[in-house]
Amino acid sequence: MKNNLENFIDTENCPVRQVLDRFGDKWSILVIIILGEKEVLRFSELSQIIGNISQKMLTVTLRKLEADGLLSRQLYPEIPPRVEYRLTRLGKGLLPLITDLTAWANKNIETIQKNRRRAGVRVSEIHPKK
Amino acid sequence: MKNNLENFIDTENCPVRQVLDRFGDKWSILVIIILGEKEVLRFSELSQIIGNISQKMLTVTLRKLEADGLLSRQLYPEIPPRVEYRLTRLGKGLLPLITDLTAWANKNIETIQKNRRRAGVRVSEIHPKK
Repeated sequence: MKNNLENFIDTENCPVRQVLDRFGDKWSILVIIILGEKEVLRFSELSQIIGNISQKMLTVTLRKLEADGLLSRQLYPEIPPRVEYRLTRLGKGLLPLITDLTAWANKNIETIQKNRRRAGVRVSEIHPKK
Repeated sequence: MKNNLENFIDTENCPVRQVLDRFGDKWSILVIIILGEKEVLRFSELSQIIGNISQKMLTVTLRKLEADGLLSRQLYPEIPPRVEYRLTRLGKGLLPLITDLTAWANKNIETIQKNRRRAGVRVSEIHPKK
């Protein structure tokens, strides 16, 4: 197995980056955390919990996570049809890493915010609207 | 301390997201990993190791990480001036989490790629050019 550095330097084919790219997508992280806590949810329930996500963006996010095999989509042919989402074994394996990251973030956010203020960095520079 | 879910739902002020947003920036992750392995590097050395990053992008990345307090920038007033970058204590604390993530990615990338192929997802859909 190549080390971290070698994996990253091979930019185009870097497997690590292909996975980490997912973390650039805040909605994916959020969906994984929510399903980690709630276990099984329907589309409308996910939409309601997140609150400020468009139907289209939630659909795209769920499709990507399903394509990765991180969550499963179960269709029950009722009237109206019921669709349930839950984390797969793979997605559950990713969950503790995300939990560790959020724990680290919670623990260190005050320090980081203080550092940013001291550096005189405006929030708009750090987090430009995408 | 609020739990993960509550932290994420408060979208605008979410401290966790403010930190995790950094992971959407592949260059930041790469710089942290490289400094984690090499300990001390000059700008030109970082630039050479990464290879395909513009001077401007590397400058912006280093400034953000410095503003966060994740790395320190030491100027030696020589001729020509020497500038060295290294991880701070805070940055070193983040390193093992990134290492865990890359280890997970290395271990699971084949499965994920297989899943993506099976789902018939084109790479361009998953990783649109930004």
